Amino acid sequence: MEATTQIAAQVTELSYALDTFYFLVMGALVMWMAAGFTMLEAGLVRAKNTAEILTKNIGLYSIACIMYMLCGYTIMYPGDFAGGLFQSVTTIGSGLLSSSDNTAADVIASGGETYYSNLSDFFFQVVFVATAMSIVSGAVAERMKLWSFFAFTVVLTGFIYPVQGFWKWGGGFLEEAGFLDFAGAGVVHLCGAAAALAGVVLLGARKGKYGKNGQVNAIPGCNLPLATLGTLILWLGWFGFNGGSELKVSDVGEANAVALVFVNTNMAAAGGLVFALLLSRFWFGKADLTMALNGALAGLVAITAEPLTPEPIVATFIGAAGGILVVLSIVGLDKLKIDDPVGAISVHGVVGIWGVLAVCISNPEASLKVQLLGIGSIFAWVFGTSFVVWFALQQTIGIRVSEEEEYEGVDLSECGLEAYPEFTAAESP
Amino acid sequence: MEATTQIAAQVTELSYALDTFYFLVMGALVMWMAAGFTMLEAGLVRAKNTAEILTKNIGLYSIACIMYMLCGYTIMYPGDFAGGLFQSVTTIGSGLLSSSDNTAADVIASGGETYYSNLSDFFFQVVFVATAMSIVSGAVAERMKLWSFFAFTVVLTGFIYPVQGFWKWGGGFLEEAGFLDFAGAGVVHLCGAAAALAGVVLLGARKGKYGKNGQVNAIPGCNLPLATLGTLILWLGWFGFNGGSELKVSDVGEANAVALVFVNTNMAAAGGLVFALLLSRFWFGKADLTMALNGALAGLVAITAEPLTPEPIVATFIGAAGGILVVLSIVGLDKLKIDDPVGAISVHGVVGIWGVLAVCISNPEASLKVQLLGIGSIFAWVFGTSFVVWFALQQTIGIRVSEEEEYEGVDLSECGLEAYPEFTAAESP
Amino acid sequence: MEATTQIAAQVTELSYALDTFYFLVMGALVMWMAAGFTMLEAGLVRAKNTAEILTKNIGLYSIACIMYMLCGYTIMYPGDFAGGLFQSVTTIGSGLLSSSDNTAADVIASGGETYYSNLSDFFFQVVFVATAMSIVSGAVAERMKLWSFFAFTVVLTGFIYPVQGFWKWGGGFLEEAGFLDFAGAGVVHLCGAAAALAGVVLLGARKGKYGKNGQVNAIPGCNLPLATLGTLILWLGWFGFNGGSELKVSDVGEANAVALVFVNTNMAAAGGLVFALLLSRFWFGKADLTMALNGALAGLVAITAEPLTPEPIVATFIGAAGGILVVLSIVGLDKLKIDDPVGAISVHGVVGIWGVLAVCISNPEASLKVQLLGIGSIFAWVFGTSFVVWFALQQTIGIRVSEEEEYEGVDLSECGLEAYPEFTAAESP
Repeated sequence: MEATTQIAAQVTELSYALDTFYFLVMGALVMWMAAGFTMLEAGLVRAKNTAEILTKNIGLYSIACIMYMLCGYTIMYPGDFAGGLFQSVTTIGSGLLSSSDNTAADVIASGGETYYSNLSDFFFQVVFVATAMSIVSGAVAERMKLWSFFAFTVVLTGFIYPVQGFWKWGGGFLEEAGFLDFAGAGVVHLCGAAAALAGVVLLGARKGKYGKNGQVNAIPGCNLPLATLGTLILWLGWFGFNGGSELKVSDVGEANAVALVFVNTNMAAAGGLVFALLLSRFWFGKADLTMALNGALAGLVAITAEPLTPEPIVATFIGAAGGILVVLSIVGLDKLKIDDPVGAISVHGVVGIWGVLAVCISNPEASLKVQLLGIGSIFAWVFGTSFVVWFALQQTIGIRVSEEEEYEGVDLSECGLEAYPEFTAAESP
Repeated sequence: MEATTQIAAQVTELSYALDTFYFLVMGALVMWMAAGFTMLEAGLVRAKNTAEILTKNIGLYSIACIMYMLCGYTIMYPGDFAGGLFQSVTTIGSGLLSSSDNTAADVIASGGETYYSNLSDFFFQVVFVATAMSIVSGAVAERMKLWSFFAFTVVLTGFIYPVQGFWKWGGGFLEEAGFLDFAGAGVVHLCGAAAALAGVVLLGARKGKYGKNGQVNAIPGCNLPLATLGTLILWLGWFGFNGGSELKVSDVGEANAVALVFVNTNMAAAGGLVFALLLSRFWFGKADLTMALNGALAGLVAITAEPLTPEPIVATFIGAAGGILVVLSIVGLDKLKIDDPVGAISVHGVVGIWGVLAVCISNPEASLKVQLLGIGSIFAWVFGTSFVVWFALQQTIGIRVSEEEEYEGVDLSECGLEAYPEFTAAESP
Repeated sequence: MEATTQIAAQVTELSYALDTFYFLVMGALVMWMAAGFTMLEAGLVRAKNTAEILTKNIGLYSIACIMYMLCGYTIMYPGDFAGGLFQSVTTIGSGLLSSSDNTAADVIASGGETYYSNLSDFFFQVVFVATAMSIVSGAVAERMKLWSFFAFTVVLTGFIYPVQGFWKWGGGFLEEAGFLDFAGAGVVHLCGAAAALAGVVLLGARKGKYGKNGQVNAIPGCNLPLATLGTLILWLGWFGFNGGSELKVSDVGEANAVALVFVNTNMAAAGGLVFALLLSRFWFGKADLTMALNGALAGLVAITAEPLTPEPIVATFIGAAGGILVVLSIVGLDKLKIDDPVGAISVHGVVGIWGVLAVCISNPEASLKVQLLGIGSIFAWVFGTSFVVWFALQQTIGIRVSEEEEYEGVDLSECGLEAYPEFTAAESP
């Protein structure tokens, strides 16, 4: 009998190892999304603003990791260590991530309830925070001061995001109300878009984007292969984003679930791309590549709130609706003179809302009312607090570069170098 | 005794989970090959045709996923649900992918025979279809109409590919005859190349490629870092392509097999690159980077039909022969005025044939006659049906852009935008 | 009881499979670092030298794989097959990698002591060799002859690296002395940097880099999005580099260890980036993107010698110190007129030394004296032997291109093509 007990313990450990390893691999894929956002945004801005957007993206990822380690993770998951949210914020140092982890004895004693490493959980969560913040950088591109952006990053990743993350994933009131958001179409994508919108509203449009007579001037991105590469990186990374959010893979049911999430994520992206491409073909007369890319991303955002319950064909249509919506939204926001150089507010905000609502299509446990409550709460909190922070920055160090700096390109004023010193002539736009 | 039974069941489930997870990770690597083809082809065409090749590549991936979900997968793997191939084609809707998967009870009852999720199998297979179609896009670059290309994509991925895939992997006549093709040097690569060749024959060469007196004009690719990145992405993705084709990892023998496949895949690519580089150095006097890249890809294609039986040193030589062959083939096809801007027909077709034949070197179970039968059958079917489809498209909506559009670049005529609006001057080639 | 024995064997096999699979995935991530170095270096050189650096990087990876298969692996891990190091070198053919691997019976009999496939170990190790050599290519960029570089690659990857690798990881005198270097800040990074330094000393600076009156002329890289992409690829790949160096994941303790390594690796990179960016902001007045990228890489190198014992906050500071150090070192080396176009000697050499010393901060088993012995031994051996090889090459086939070739760009003289034929005008620097 003792041999059996020993083997059972070994199986429990092996199971823990597989789940931890799965979590780390999925986390690495999500980390890779940082490269996706970086390339996407670098491809969609003008050459003269490229070095700054690169600096912003790799900088925000780093800041997000540090802030989430210092306090964000503990705010979001107060766990048993705290008397809850506020204590963890007010007790200096108590929020700091520790390297201590589950012992083998605890894991075996838990009978499989403790099934992965705490640090693998932190790793997976921290790359989500960075994702949320990456959404902001694209929307405020080509005219924002670098260090104001970084200051905002500190607040969003260390406080604003974790608080609403706690509401859903830390066991807060949205979780208790039954709000459904599998991998964060609301908690991550809508959050990022709401923060971006607050910034864009205060920042204003780029010079020359909107003419006096209401015309919208296209400002083409300088490097579409990079934008396409970025989209494909995000597509790949999303398998980790959604696939890892199942949190477990080590039995038949869980393994099937992860596989279905992979398939549905892929199908939604495909549906989003095809329908955005078709719509742009029939509406504008040409197969607009940038719309297609945003269509794929919209499909991915749309399925993020529920990639587990739809049939693959339904997932394709949920993504396709996202793809159509994103084209309409990009055109619509331009009508409202909300200038978002990469379409991030449309992709992550408008389609994020669609994704949260679309849970009701395939998941019988979803309540439209509660989904709306989630959307409203997240948007109100993130937009409100972000607006205050952006406003405070605007009144102090300023958030917008000078008109001359904008004309010359923010690369020179903010980074002191050019992204493509040999490729661009003096008369570039 | 009951405890033992329970643990045995748990081990079976865990084993299923590991194999499914392995399959998903390998599939994600193959999906990443879509980015590899996209960057490779974008790097090897001229700037004015870049946006279209990006649109084609990300578009074909999406269409492939949708068509394979709608009917392709079921045509290729009719399984027990059908009375075979034709029924699945004729019964509308019966080909649609379902989200139902193996139950834990079935898996345990099967005693390990059912060892991974059906949906993980679909995910792995669907990225293969896209790979086959990606081969086509490069060969017909710089002069084909975008929507004709997409129309062809629908037919190839939904019908032509699955039928010959069924012959080998679905249990059809090639499987019964003993045709050996581990990961698809024939089923995937030769298939793609045969479809490409049919298109290129009907399409004709790019303007200016071949002079009146038989001279061949080099048309250099505009962005070799992208082409190199694409090659390295494909190299990485190929670990999934070949490594995943072992289908199982969960015991000592299978784990060793996957490891050997990784090593041999890597060695063949290295051998292909080094020998293509050496040949180009001694033949042309310079270390031609594009030949080296095609050499690495040729090495990968060459080992794809049998990465499991050769010793690593033999794998290196199989790849090296591929690398030499691809240089000869690229030069040879130009002599025949078959204009393939990225060398796809040479890499995937000529070397694909070499790979299928090379199985006989290391695998005693291979029969040269049967390998030739496989090559002949796949080529005849794919080239024949593709020719018919391309021809039908040519006679209806047309497959080639106008001479003026070709001169201006297909980006403007097909996509309405430029890939590098700031980098290229008016007088670009 | 027999059922129990059978299950125990099955669990042992499954455990072996998981560890092997983990090793292969980590190895694939390290292989991906080849793309990282390639993009980083291609982004930091001038357009006219880009095709050559691409050729060098993908070529060195291939050569490294072949040489390590032929003899390097056996020199480094003589194991029981040899009477040790010298025998394996002198017996022709005995160094060749074989495809034979552990049998299931051996694995089960070993009771878990033999826990992964030999070939997965080779795969993981071979990508490390390539990493070491990649460090060299950046430092000697823009003026070295291609084939001299490849000749050096043969010697370093087939002999110089394996010998010092044996000292630590093969059970040699550094291992016996208690030298601690978890994933190779010394064995891989300092090794590469020492070989690079020897080459740079003999090669001399690029024309125009250092003025007559001691001024240092900046020679800006031509494509910063590529450099940023390369850094993010390296960041991702480093999870494999450090995470795989734990060598095992299949129980609770090991899984926790791998998770902690992932977290600390990520934190150190973030710390390095933020502090290099801050320092460049306050010192130079601008947020220098290239310094930030090198800061992230410095953070990664710094944590490589010991990512397992520090708390995450300590790892962040170890990385931050690396980030500060790299900025000081880049400026300092320019004062010494040691011209390293991409900063490789600073990132991997200076910070590699810091990393090896920093083990003493968190690991009580470390001895400062032994760590210094390791640094001294590795540097002396690699610098000394490399100097001899570079010198021999210089005296025979030459290592530096002619002044005119350097002015025109090595792409034309060495590769016979341009990396960006359409983007660069005649007057490029």
